Amino acid sequence: MYLVLVYDINMEGNGPKILRNVFKICKKYLTHIQNSVFEGELSEGQMMQLKIEIKQYLREDMDSCIIFKGRNDIWMKKEFVIKEEDKTSTFL
Amino acid sequence: MYLVLVYDINMEGNGPKILRNVFKICKKYLTHIQNSVFEGELSEGQMMQLKIEIKQYLREDMDSCIIFKGRNDIWMKKEFVIKEEDKTSTFL
Repeated sequence: MYLVLVYDINMEGNGPKILRNVFKICKKYLTHIQNSVFEGELSEGQMMQLKIEIKQYLREDMDSCIIFKGRNDIWMKKEFVIKEEDKTSTFL
Repeated sequence: MYLVLVYDINMEGNGPKILRNVFKICKKYLTHIQNSVFEGELSEGQMMQLKIEIKQYLREDMDSCIIFKGRNDIWMKKEFVIKEEDKTSTFL
């Protein structure tokens, strides 16, 4: 199953720490393509595990995270509207 | 054609103003589903027009924007990892 994951972490309170933790977890499972965007191929089990791990950190009333799921990436063309440069892969 | 658009605007310099402008343009063409995430059905021509408009504002070395394109949204299941609440539709 092909996934695109996008999160938005509120920077209030523990925001910066939560962001680092969620980023680290997502990088374990997926490829980082833009600040808050990850993509990759996962099994159902791996996706469940990823969700369990990030849900520990995400704050219901402040943060948000969406996963777009598709059978595979054939349908999906990705286009960088401006220069393709992963400026934050060295985030940590 | 079904699109998911995700942008990341750097808050340095004119960032806040650029964010407002890019947000307004995206809302004209697409549905806002999460802070920096939009989705919707556009023709090739509408997509070209959207890109022209946002490119006026995006700064090559600071901002980034990705468009995921697919024939239609049937392939794509969207899942909100935590409560589905569009907290920023009243962004402006």
